[in-house]
Amino acid sequence: MSEVKEKAALAAANAPQLAWLTSEQKNHALLAAADALITGTEEILKANQEDLERGRQNGTSASMLDRLALTSERIKGMAEGLRQIAGLQDPVGEVLETLDRPNGLHIIKKRVPIGVIGIIYEARPNVTVDAAGLCLKTGNAVLLRGGSAALSSNIQIAELFHAALESAGLPKDVLQLVHDSDRSSVDEMLKLNGLLDVIIPRGGSSLIQHVVQNASVPVIETGAGICHTYLDASADLEMALSIAVNAKAQRPSVCNSMETLLIHQHFAGKYMDQVGEAFKTAGVELRGCERTRQLLPEAKAVTEQDFATEYNDYILNVKIVDDLQQAMDHIAKFSTKHSECIVTENEEHSARFLNEVDAATVYHNASTRFTDGFEFGFGAEIGISTQKLHARGPMGLPALTSTKYMVKGSGQIRG
Amino acid sequence: MSEVKEKAALAAANAPQLAWLTSEQKNHALLAAADALITGTEEILKANQEDLERGRQNGTSASMLDRLALTSERIKGMAEGLRQIAGLQDPVGEVLETLDRPNGLHIIKKRVPIGVIGIIYEARPNVTVDAAGLCLKTGNAVLLRGGSAALSSNIQIAELFHAALESAGLPKDVLQLVHDSDRSSVDEMLKLNGLLDVIIPRGGSSLIQHVVQNASVPVIETGAGICHTYLDASADLEMALSIAVNAKAQRPSVCNSMETLLIHQHFAGKYMDQVGEAFKTAGVELRGCERTRQLLPEAKAVTEQDFATEYNDYILNVKIVDDLQQAMDHIAKFSTKHSECIVTENEEHSARFLNEVDAATVYHNASTRFTDGFEFGFGAEIGISTQKLHARGPMGLPALTSTKYMVKGSGQIRG
Repeated sequence: MSEVKEKAALAAANAPQLAWLTSEQKNHALLAAADALITGTEEILKANQEDLERGRQNGTSASMLDRLALTSERIKGMAEGLRQIAGLQDPVGEVLETLDRPNGLHIIKKRVPIGVIGIIYEARPNVTVDAAGLCLKTGNAVLLRGGSAALSSNIQIAELFHAALESAGLPKDVLQLVHDSDRSSVDEMLKLNGLLDVIIPRGGSSLIQHVVQNASVPVIETGAGICHTYLDASADLEMALSIAVNAKAQRPSVCNSMETLLIHQHFAGKYMDQVGEAFKTAGVELRGCERTRQLLPEAKAVTEQDFATEYNDYILNVKIVDDLQQAMDHIAKFSTKHSECIVTENEEHSARFLNEVDAATVYHNASTRFTDGFEFGFGAEIGISTQKLHARGPMGLPALTSTKYMVKGSGQIRG
Repeated sequence: MSEVKEKAALAAANAPQLAWLTSEQKNHALLAAADALITGTEEILKANQEDLERGRQNGTSASMLDRLALTSERIKGMAEGLRQIAGLQDPVGEVLETLDRPNGLHIIKKRVPIGVIGIIYEARPNVTVDAAGLCLKTGNAVLLRGGSAALSSNIQIAELFHAALESAGLPKDVLQLVHDSDRSSVDEMLKLNGLLDVIIPRGGSSLIQHVVQNASVPVIETGAGICHTYLDASADLEMALSIAVNAKAQRPSVCNSMETLLIHQHFAGKYMDQVGEAFKTAGVELRGCERTRQLLPEAKAVTEQDFATEYNDYILNVKIVDDLQQAMDHIAKFSTKHSECIVTENEEHSARFLNEVDAATVYHNASTRFTDGFEFGFGAEIGISTQKLHARGPMGLPALTSTKYMVKGSGQIRG
């Protein structure tokens, strides 16, 4: 049996033991894991050095090395994250519905763990801690398959986690880390129906698309974000500039940042100089439509391909539209249905936009950068779902649960 | 462009128009469709005769012809089904959660239609009506791909539905029927990410497995049912026999019927004759384990393969177990996680069984045959989900919806 299948089977065999632990038992294990990360800081840093050394030899890019690199500060942050998860409310066991049927059947719908969750991610050791913590809190076993460039760090983190689980009296086999760094181990995971209940990919769009296209295990698609902000004719200038610049430039590398700014022709007619100035100050390169370039000649010409690109960088497409409908048509064509925003003082327009634009999160007069589990008050999140099944938008702990009907009778049979 | 892709694109283009209709508009269209089926009965029956004639020429089995055959009674039943759907509460627009954040953001989580639903099914024209009705009620566009043996009937039904949609002022293109009867049209549907939001297969396990294994569009897996009933040591004899016979023999062809009866050794020691007699009377063939055959020599020997088979027939596996744990271990090994039952007077045992057995629906002292949307009070159902994401167990109307976050601000940006 391959390593992946063997570890998935171990996780599945041990998952039931995790499913009915009390919140106290799970929180105890989470706090033990947080402590283990702190006391094991030296060992983690040593393993991380091995990863970094290997990365440098392989010519890994500086930005990838930066995401891979750990410091004692970052490890403290990871431990703090686990303590925060321990402090969140446990969704498992919650009664969602009770039904009393005329024949006397009493039906209870309860939240239960999903079972075994597969996480496929890139070379970011913090995801190992995050995912392990969120799955533990929700009573799920987990099979982790991180990027091979972080393997030494991940092995060390998993060892510390295992010791913490055992010290808390839980079976360590509910957390499994795949060591096999061959791409084929990912593809094998994608087909483990019956052992894995769901796979959640975390990373760039090529990873996510590979998982979505090839998995037969159910997938929760996360992350891709081509987000728009539309400045309506009646938008307040100061608010519009503040929201648009924040959506683009506060942290361009993340999925909820803006890629295309749509501007009503009347707003553009009055304020295009200020728009250009604001983005220039923020260090953002503009790519504009024909009408934009008449008003801002320094902008490059935007292409259809640009409208379909998630830059994750200080680059912004700008398009002037005739009206709200044209803005919504553009969004319908290019949006990845993540986060979309209208800035307007017109209540009728904001209502239409919020109702009709098809996205996980739609905004009126606020930056798209708020699409985030912490900002919504959910605490840590496993990702932001951009699909429509099971969970949509920031996924709090309930997104890592399933449900079960318990039916209590007194001999009822069907006639 | 292929027929499938063209029709999916038409459905997707028209879906937004359906999404924000009022319940009244949708109900009006449903009632119009019910009327259209009644007034179009002759045309449907004529088309159905073509299907039956073609089926007979192709040597289709009697049971398949029976499921394909329509009568004016059956058409009345289908119309009545649409009227019932019109009478159900519309889940779309329901506010599921509101969050007021410290920064003043007001967040509303609302139920919205999923978008475009693909349904792949066998030669049962009633599924055409059912699926079209349920999708319409929930504001979803639908792409229907039924078994080719029912194509003439389905074309006629879709035409009547289209006329009803138009008479109610709705775009007829929200309902699309695939005519291409080549298997490749199914496989093409399975890959239409971006046009279809979900695919729901309805039919036998080979159809469902083909969809699950090959789709890149998210799937809701339905139907496979290897269900168990466990008669505990303390079970009441009369209740136990009544539930077990009902679970097996009231309608063996459906997914929530029982395939394997597990019996505690003490119960078997006292009552095995009565068990054998009850199933003999019900016309059920028994396949027993070694210990069963010592008490009921007329039972054939059961195999591991039998335990993994969904008979959908008057055949039952019988196994005597030492205790509750052995019963639960057997269930964990062979269950499809659909419906599982314990008959016992021991409250501790029933609590363990309901908590620990991993299935969509778990029963104490009632027949597994109740796992059904009507029996749960949901009204019509699109199927019974046996997966853990999105929906589990009987799927009422809310299972055909997604959610959306609407965020209202006053200029908030992220710091």
